[in-house]
Order: sequence, then structure tokens, then C-alpha cells
Amino acid sequence: MKGLLVKDMDYANEILGGSERAVARLMSWLEDEDERAYSVMEALYPHTGKAFILGITGSPGAGKSTLTDKLARQIRKQGHSVGIIAVDPSSPFTGGALLGDRVRMCELTMDPEIYIRSMATRGFLGGMAKATADVVRALDAFGKDVIIIETVGVGQDEVDIIGIADTTCLVLVPGLGDVIQSMKAGVMEIADIFAINKSDRPGADQLSAEVSNRIEQDARIKPSDWTPSIVRTVAVDDVGVDDLWKAIENHRDFLKSSGRFIEKRRERTRKETLRMIHGEIFRIVREQLQTTGELDDLVEDILERKRDPYSVMRDVVNSWIALPPICQKEAS
Amino acid sequence: MKGLLVKDMDYANEILGGSERAVARLMSWLEDEDERAYSVMEALYPHTGKAFILGITGSPGAGKSTLTDKLARQIRKQGHSVGIIAVDPSSPFTGGALLGDRVRMCELTMDPEIYIRSMATRGFLGGMAKATADVVRALDAFGKDVIIIETVGVGQDEVDIIGIADTTCLVLVPGLGDVIQSMKAGVMEIADIFAINKSDRPGADQLSAEVSNRIEQDARIKPSDWTPSIVRTVAVDDVGVDDLWKAIENHRDFLKSSGRFIEKRRERTRKETLRMIHGEIFRIVREQLQTTGELDDLVEDILERKRDPYSVMRDVVNSWIALPPICQKEAS
Repeated sequence: MKGLLVKDMDYANEILGGSERAVARLMSWLEDEDERAYSVMEALYPHTGKAFILGITGSPGAGKSTLTDKLARQIRKQGHSVGIIAVDPSSPFTGGALLGDRVRMCELTMDPEIYIRSMATRGFLGGMAKATADVVRALDAFGKDVIIIETVGVGQDEVDIIGIADTTCLVLVPGLGDVIQSMKAGVMEIADIFAINKSDRPGADQLSAEVSNRIEQDARIKPSDWTPSIVRTVAVDDVGVDDLWKAIENHRDFLKSSGRFIEKRRERTRKETLRMIHGEIFRIVREQLQTTGELDDLVEDILERKRDPYSVMRDVVNSWIALPPICQKEAS
Repeated sequence: MKGLLVKDMDYANEILGGSERAVARLMSWLEDEDERAYSVMEALYPHTGKAFILGITGSPGAGKSTLTDKLARQIRKQGHSVGIIAVDPSSPFTGGALLGDRVRMCELTMDPEIYIRSMATRGFLGGMAKATADVVRALDAFGKDVIIIETVGVGQDEVDIIGIADTTCLVLVPGLGDVIQSMKAGVMEIADIFAINKSDRPGADQLSAEVSNRIEQDARIKPSDWTPSIVRTVAVDDVGVDDLWKAIENHRDFLKSSGRFIEKRRERTRKETLRMIHGEIFRIVREQLQTTGELDDLVEDILERKRDPYSVMRDVVNSWIALPPICQKEAS
């Protein structure tokens, strides 16, 4: 945090002072991986770590946005401020849907204590999870008590994004054929709470039974000190949303009392730090190889089979990586 | 390729000689990012670049696996050998499904000229696309004429994976509500051919009309020298699969005659080379940070807000990456 410019501190103070304009611009910079963002984030960082981060995930069509909408109102009733980050995955198959849903939520934005940010997947190699983590920190410093990350739970990107949350709620609906599949495929690990939405539909009882069976089986195989709860909701009619929020608060209390809260955040900080280093290395590698034109030459040699990508990789890496002791000495 | 050990050359020759055992073990190494794989890949690389790479993608339930199955038989009828790489995304919601489908394809494995490999998403930050590109190269060197990559088109990982293909076929089915969404979300760019599968279902005409409308609109906005073709199939009944293969061959011929083939491969080689260099540098840095315990200390400082992740990132990267001019001089 040392060596920050006055303008960055001023900018940070604008955000800490509650300027929506300032935080919105910062978040755009973060999405665009604009250099200017990071010195401001440095200044903001000491003011982060207070918000409770909730992840809402589930298949397309599960009604996540409506549920998020109603949850936000519920949370406001408790007097907490809310930040919502809706992540639209890059998937051609779902990309449009979330954006559409966002429109429904506009009414929420009438409440100054609710801030909604829609992010489209962009960038390359985990860039989305990094940007999301940054935006969460920005809203955290901005003073939002609860930050909801809403994402479609498909693809490694989205799994990484959900990893940012303290508590994760998986939204299921009756009559989606792939539920058993999803049970098989290890969704249990990411879900702290199951919301069975549209539970006025036929099949809700069966789905609920399947889920609790699965939870029991799982507990036998891999005992845990938290048993995921199941809550039935009909988000459009605002049914069960208060119970869902209670279940979420229960899990948060469990995390705090059991020490899992700090454990989880430690694990997340570990992942995020690695991810940031990863992203920065990529930025430098790409810039350097492209600006020098070295990449073009290498690519031609590889295409013509004069060279192979594996030895090229080794040679470049060896010429670049300075094992700290050596290169620091050399440099001094 | 210089400086390869005799054992690596021998291993490579085993694979070039057609040993399934050898190629299977190599691919496992590649999936596990096992160091031993890369010297063998170096030896194999000059023998790659011959295979035609076909990408098959689409939403869960579109019938990709059955279509891939039938296509493989069709391709065999033309006397070509086939390699199939089925990528199971990490998604809890679809992960199980593809694996299930694979079972149906076992009959194919009776034909020695068809090699099927199922890959589960693993690794960290783009590791999957890298591993898939490596496995494609292994099957290419192994002598497969056509390599089919089958993946669910969701998430950045899968988009990167489909980027490996020369020709991409997007599988759609009537009655999936999200078709229009998917059209909006820029799927047009990745699809060279649209297969409307299960086209005996109601809504096939409408879907086909929507797609061709979309293609026309797109051609007006962004003129291109290739107009995606639409082929109707009923994969389970082997209907339209021969037409689909003809459409694929047409696109391949177009790529070759227009020069786009080499352009695409140049672009892909560019991406893959960057991905490999960057992945290797990150691997080294991560290992170092973890084995020395430096990462743990940094994480604690960040958690306690003694430091911020942004300056940590900068410091770590600066201490590791010596940009060539400086460090090469120093080192010599």
C-alpha cells in the first residue's frame, strides 16, 4: 500500500464516501483490466473484508434472478445494504438469458441501498473469476453489507466464481431432467443450501426427497459438520424467501462459530492470489512476445515444423524466468 | 527437437508404429501434466499437422454423442481413421451426462480404426484447453485422419477447446427454449455448420428458419466468405448424417481453397504457444511459492490486511520475470 499517489487515495476516499459514480467507473476499469484500477484497489483494500458474500447458482431457467431479486428485498427489510453481481457466462447457450432477466430487476435499483452490477464474461484464462473477485472487493469497500454473486453454475469459470462466496445456494427446479446427473457430478460439495424453486410445480416432493437422500448418502461417505439445508421457494410469489434467508443466516452463523469462515477465506485468498499472479504473468508474457514480434517468428517455425512448441516453451521460459536469488543479485 | 533421449525417440516410434498402449499412456501423462509427456511430444511433433480436426458442440441433451457416434461410422465408410475426444466439462449440471453417453459408444471401440478418449475437465485456469490440444496432437501423430472434439459449449474453457478445431459444428434441437438466446449471444462466430438434430420433432422447421434468418442478418452486418450451412439430422436413426459429413467436407475444402485453413492454424498455434509458455511460467512460480511456504505467509499478511493482493502480485511477478534483454545479458 506504500507509495500510493494522492490521486489514488482521493479516488478511494470518494468511493469510501459513497460515490456511486466513482465505484461504477472503478468496476468498469476492473472489468477491462485497466491498469488504473489496481492502485485504487490497493488504497481500498484495508477497508474490505466486512461484507458477507452469498453465491446463487443453478441451471438456466431455475429462476435465479427472481430469487435474487426477492432475497435482496428480504435482506433490505433486515436493514442491510445489498450489492448484486450478476455474472453472464460466455456461453452462447445461456449468455443472453441472464441479461434478459436483469431487466426485471430494474425496479430494485430504485432503492439506493441496492447496487446491481451485470458482468459479461470476457478475457481469457480465469479472467472472469479474477474480475469478479475484484468487483466484490470494490462493493465491499463501498460499504455493501451483503454481496450476492449470481451465476449459472456451468464451466470452470463459474465454479471458480462461486468459490468466492462464503455461502453458496444452489437453485433447483422440479422437472429438470439433469438433477440426478448434477447430484452425481459433485454439486454437493459446492452447495451449502438447496433452494427448490418453483416448488408449486409437480415433482417438488420427489426432487426434495432425492436431494435429502443424496445429502444423507454424502454424509455417510464424507462426514461434515454442516448438513446442507433444503428450502422450498416460489420466488415469483415471494413464497419461502424469508425461510431461505433464515437458512442462509444459519449457515453464516455456523461458519463463524465453527471457524470455517476464516478457513474458507484463507483458502479463497490463496486461490485469488495465485490467480492474480497467473493473470499478471500472462499479461506480461503476451505483451512482451507480441510487441517484439518474437511470437510471430516462433509461430511460423512451429507451423513449418522447423521447431516444436514444447522446446520453444522451454527455451522462452528459461530465458525469462529468473529464479529470484540469481536474478535479483544480477540486477543489483 | 535436439537433445532428445533415445528412450523418448523409442517411445515416440512405438506410437508412430501404432501402439495403442503407448499412446494411451502418453495421453494420461498429458492429462496429468506429467513432465515425461513433453519430451515424447517433442519427438512426435514433426509427425503432426496431418489430421483434420472437427469440433462438435451444443447444449446438454442436443444429442452430440449419438451424432458423433454416427459421424464416426460415416467417416470410416470413407476409409478414414477416426479419433474422438469427448471433453466432459467440470459443470455439476452436465458433467455426468457425457460420461453416461460414452457408454453407448463402446460398440464403436470394436473398430480398431476408431479411438475414443474421454477427458474430464481438470487443472487450473485453461489447463483443459492445453491438455486437449496436446491430446489432439498425440492422436494426430498416432495417425488418425479425422479427430473429433466433442464438448458442451459452455464456459470459457469449452470455447477455448472448440477453438482448436478446423471446422465447428453446432448441434441444436427443436424445442430448446434458449435457441434465440444462443443466437443473440454470438454463437454464430463459432459455428461453421449447424446440425438441427432430432429434426423429426415439432419445431424443426421453425428452428431451421430462425437459424437461416440469423445467418442472413449476420452476413449483412459482418460479410464473410463462408455462409454456414444448415443440415437436419435424426442421429438415433442415422438420418442426415451423410449430408452432415458432406457439409463438413465442403467447409474443409473451402478452408483449404480460400487459405483460411492455414490462417486458422496460425492463429491457433499463436494461442497455444502463448498458453503453453504462460502455463509453464505459472507452474514454476506456483511450485516455488508453495514449497518455500512463501505463499502461506503472503496469504496471512493479506488476510490481516497488512498487505494487499495487488502489490503482492506486482512484487512476486517482478521478482520472477526478468525481461530478456536485461536478464540474458546479466546471466552470460
